[in-house]
Amino acid sequence: MSEWENNVRKPEPYTPGEQPKDRDIIKLNTNENPYPPAPAAAQILKDFRYADLRLYPDPQASDLVKAIADTYSVKPSQVFVGSGSDDVLSMSFLTFFASDKPVLFPEITYSFYDVWAELYGVPYEQIPLKDDLTIDPADYMKENGGIIFANPNAPTGIFMETDAVEKILSENPRSVVIVDEAYIDFGGTSCLPLIKKYDNLLVVQTFSKSRSMAGLRIGYAIGSEKLIQYLNDVKFSVNSYTMNRLTILCGAAAVKDTAYLKETAAKIIKTREHSKKALIRLGFEVTDSKANFIFVKHKTADAKKIFEELKKRRIYVRYWDKPIIKDYLRITIGTSSDMLKLYDALEEILK
Amino acid sequence: MSEWENNVRKPEPYTPGEQPKDRDIIKLNTNENPYPPAPAAAQILKDFRYADLRLYPDPQASDLVKAIADTYSVKPSQVFVGSGSDDVLSMSFLTFFASDKPVLFPEITYSFYDVWAELYGVPYEQIPLKDDLTIDPADYMKENGGIIFANPNAPTGIFMETDAVEKILSENPRSVVIVDEAYIDFGGTSCLPLIKKYDNLLVVQTFSKSRSMAGLRIGYAIGSEKLIQYLNDVKFSVNSYTMNRLTILCGAAAVKDTAYLKETAAKIIKTREHSKKALIRLGFEVTDSKANFIFVKHKTADAKKIFEELKKRRIYVRYWDKPIIKDYLRITIGTSSDMLKLYDALEEILK
Repeated sequence: MSEWENNVRKPEPYTPGEQPKDRDIIKLNTNENPYPPAPAAAQILKDFRYADLRLYPDPQASDLVKAIADTYSVKPSQVFVGSGSDDVLSMSFLTFFASDKPVLFPEITYSFYDVWAELYGVPYEQIPLKDDLTIDPADYMKENGGIIFANPNAPTGIFMETDAVEKILSENPRSVVIVDEAYIDFGGTSCLPLIKKYDNLLVVQTFSKSRSMAGLRIGYAIGSEKLIQYLNDVKFSVNSYTMNRLTILCGAAAVKDTAYLKETAAKIIKTREHSKKALIRLGFEVTDSKANFIFVKHKTADAKKIFEELKKRRIYVRYWDKPIIKDYLRITIGTSSDMLKLYDALEEILK
Repeated sequence: MSEWENNVRKPEPYTPGEQPKDRDIIKLNTNENPYPPAPAAAQILKDFRYADLRLYPDPQASDLVKAIADTYSVKPSQVFVGSGSDDVLSMSFLTFFASDKPVLFPEITYSFYDVWAELYGVPYEQIPLKDDLTIDPADYMKENGGIIFANPNAPTGIFMETDAVEKILSENPRSVVIVDEAYIDFGGTSCLPLIKKYDNLLVVQTFSKSRSMAGLRIGYAIGSEKLIQYLNDVKFSVNSYTMNRLTILCGAAAVKDTAYLKETAAKIIKTREHSKKALIRLGFEVTDSKANFIFVKHKTADAKKIFEELKKRRIYVRYWDKPIIKDYLRITIGTSSDMLKLYDALEEILK
């Protein structure tokens, strides 16, 4: 090792799900939406003035911020945007969790939380789920430097009702509480109305799931003007221009189409509920997922083995070789046709 | 102030140059290229399969990385990409400057360096330029936790020859040395060949200046495989997907057109050299800029006053009300026609 390597920060990075380039794989491993994005933005790309790329984008991404604010009936000064919700969450860790007290989050949740905490030197405590894989609000009533949880939680898909979220908020006026609602549009109810009452609540959502735009990279946070101002100060200390011209224009056009969002989300919910029944018939236990994926455990067969056998059949799902969840598979809800192929493959594997 | 605000990080953010939305302003304030990007990428946008936006981009941005590697005759494992060179530099501060010793950079340089240092808690020392506004390599021979400088330097535009860069490198095997070559294609010579000899040299460049793609957000770093691996580990601890699908495709197509880059850079160089003469005739002193901007000081007139008067005439240039450089203006090189309008306006103002 060279001497300069002593000065290098060496985090243990997050490993995203595989992104194979091969197009004939049935890809149920990274919770992408099987339907295309709202059609409104397609024309934006066709009409885009190519020469405009020579100019910097608007550093405030005002058009996108305003479109999101209008959609959720908040002020533009209550909206922060970033390159996917990972960017928004990463900035939020850096901004809001600068305390010596531990930040609290569930032991089983989005596995990027501990990576950001480690990277930015944020102390943290991972709180076990209950035996039924739900989050117990009572566990979040102790002293802390911040709280973050996903709702619905990942990879369980289990949703916590707004009154339970509010219990956590009402007991924690001294911390920023971040609710990561990446999967909220698939049957949960957003806790957004609570931002009027709690100026320390930050709600984070994304264009990557219900809005079918994972490839464009847009995430956003909504909260009090104070929270958003703090986030922007950190963002402008990292990179003035995180959102490119195409992203701002396409995102602003697409977000307005709430009808399309509801229509595609309803289709996914329908497929999800059907898939739960189909998998129970195949001998799986399923959680009550309100996300665009299901989290399943077979009564007898080994999860890793099923994962590998599916992969051989060109069906990708997600498996973590980790304590507590190593008997589970997370399966993204694809089209009905994708799911039928999955059932057939599972039937063959489990035979 | 609410109690939760005690846990908030409150940096002093970088202020980018104004980005007015009004299109009839002569915009010479943020070093954008007056010519459109290489034509190769325009067709990419026209042909893009909109529905593909539902899928995550390649987290490694392999197509773009490979295109850059091919262009500079290095291995893909020696190339790191980010959302503009600000993203690349920000990650580099976080990755390479995790030392208790001060990182060294010039007192007058890109004013984001101290912002990143403050944000990530990196100790630093700002080293004065010589009276002629050049960097003295001898000043960078003391103990340090890393070194970064822009070459050509900003906002002076002054270029340091490769043998001077190598002097700094040869005396600093224990630190990562970052050379920020955002403006290298306008008459300087890149120190890239030195990466073969120094595994602690990171060269950072951008698509925002010579490649006319500020609106797309692409920056890149080239260095030893070791350096790039470390950068990627940090990047994958921040955000798996920083580059969106459109950016990867357009960037990969555009970077290959070296002939176009050379042609437009030559036009800008020609205009720059002409503008130096024109401004000297108007009573300005000019530095020997090898960038796509000039850095000028009037012999008698007040810089701030000129800045404001130009703005009234809808010509934007950059002015910093800061010690040492408060008598200077930084003026981006626009088209010949933009520059003629600038000379006319200056003549009127200075009359």
